[in-house]
Amino acid sequence: MNKTKEKVNAAIVIIGNEILSGRTQDVNVVTISKWLNELGVKLEEVRVIPDTEDSIIKTVSELKNFFNYVFTTGGIGPTHDDITSKSIAKLFKMSYGYHKEAYKILEKYYGKDKFNTGRKKMAKMPIKALLILNSSSGAPGFIVENVYCLPGVPSILKSMLGGLNNQIKGGKKILSKTISAETVESEIAKSLEKVQNKFKRVEIGSYPFFRYGKIGVSFVIRSTEKKQIDDCHKQIVSFLKKKEIFIIG
Amino acid sequence: MNKTKEKVNAAIVIIGNEILSGRTQDVNVVTISKWLNELGVKLEEVRVIPDTEDSIIKTVSELKNFFNYVFTTGGIGPTHDDITSKSIAKLFKMSYGYHKEAYKILEKYYGKDKFNTGRKKMAKMPIKALLILNSSSGAPGFIVENVYCLPGVPSILKSMLGGLNNQIKGGKKILSKTISAETVESEIAKSLEKVQNKFKRVEIGSYPFFRYGKIGVSFVIRSTEKKQIDDCHKQIVSFLKKKEIFIIG
Repeated sequence: MNKTKEKVNAAIVIIGNEILSGRTQDVNVVTISKWLNELGVKLEEVRVIPDTEDSIIKTVSELKNFFNYVFTTGGIGPTHDDITSKSIAKLFKMSYGYHKEAYKILEKYYGKDKFNTGRKKMAKMPIKALLILNSSSGAPGFIVENVYCLPGVPSILKSMLGGLNNQIKGGKKILSKTISAETVESEIAKSLEKVQNKFKRVEIGSYPFFRYGKIGVSFVIRSTEKKQIDDCHKQIVSFLKKKEIFIIG
Repeated sequence: MNKTKEKVNAAIVIIGNEILSGRTQDVNVVTISKWLNELGVKLEEVRVIPDTEDSIIKTVSELKNFFNYVFTTGGIGPTHDDITSKSIAKLFKMSYGYHKEAYKILEKYYGKDKFNTGRKKMAKMPIKALLILNSSSGAPGFIVENVYCLPGVPSILKSMLGGLNNQIKGGKKILSKTISAETVESEIAKSLEKVQNKFKRVEIGSYPFFRYGKIGVSFVIRSTEKKQIDDCHKQIVSFLKKKEIFIIG
């Protein structure tokens, strides 16, 4: 859980009472995580916290020291419960106010007549932040040091990630291979552990599933080294065959 | 984020590389959170962490001091990556080994002949833990002090919560009321803030949505006091009507 040169890691902070209350199902973690995998960045922690200044400042200031990248989602809209921008400014001891470029973008997007107080609030942020442009709804996200502030609305968040690719310096891409088989975990636990012990630079996860009326287990092999994954895959297939377990795919 | 007598709060620790890698969509937070609402317990933080002993011990030992209840999900199965039970025993400096009652339950569930090493591992936990019974698949969860260890498989987790109702001492039930209207946040931000400032013991969340081809905002009012919610609701309805905004429901 520490920044290192070889491994590039990240954390996500979900700022959202609506997630904590169970009202809204988060889907942004999966989106961001898959995008980070492609860039060679390993997501190593997620925190969901309430919309309060204290919890935002405490959580983000802790995580930004441990991880190469911290992504926040939510709380950058126009209403009273959107306090991410102000909290991040306070955390970094930066002035909070209208960001010139963001103001121009939003004024153009809405038109001078319809650019009301609520909309103007979305241009308020740490005034020296770097913007994350938003083609789908105008209002930008922003970056301060290694903290990237994104919106909570999944479709808007998704549309903003592509534009960030050049900002992220990843490490080796994290590769993975999955084997699914008709078995139960307790039947293969011992053999699987033996394989894991042989491949220290590979992470093997074992996940039971019930689908299409079938019980099975998926083995997910993850590593930055393709050869290690392939060798590990072979050994899992081999013990499954020896045990006469049907491999689905 | 501190334990108090009036407010009963909780945190969830999701132990799962599969969630961090983006392979699996977590759904347990919504399940646990809704169940806690009914019991008068407010979920105030969620952390998703890797399947490592260090991160489990560090995270759970931090959170158990801040929250009345801590729920962990995942990592209590039979494979090598299931290390929650062992880590929790270490954290509480309790012996880790076969839990007599759990062993009996599992032996009966599988039958002596089929009770292999993998299955036996599911009876290993802090030996003095209190069991959380599991009618759907035999293997129990467990409780040590204020830490409740649950499985990661959503259907099994769900089936175990009901049996826990008597173990949880909640506070006042958290009530909520939602108003959805055809508007955008920036149109109502100012009026909504005024209402929020009048009702300090109520939490008003504002959530934009796009559905059925319509753009709208849902206002969620939460509090333990019904009268406060009703009064707050009236004032929101009133400003929406004044602005001639269509109230969907």
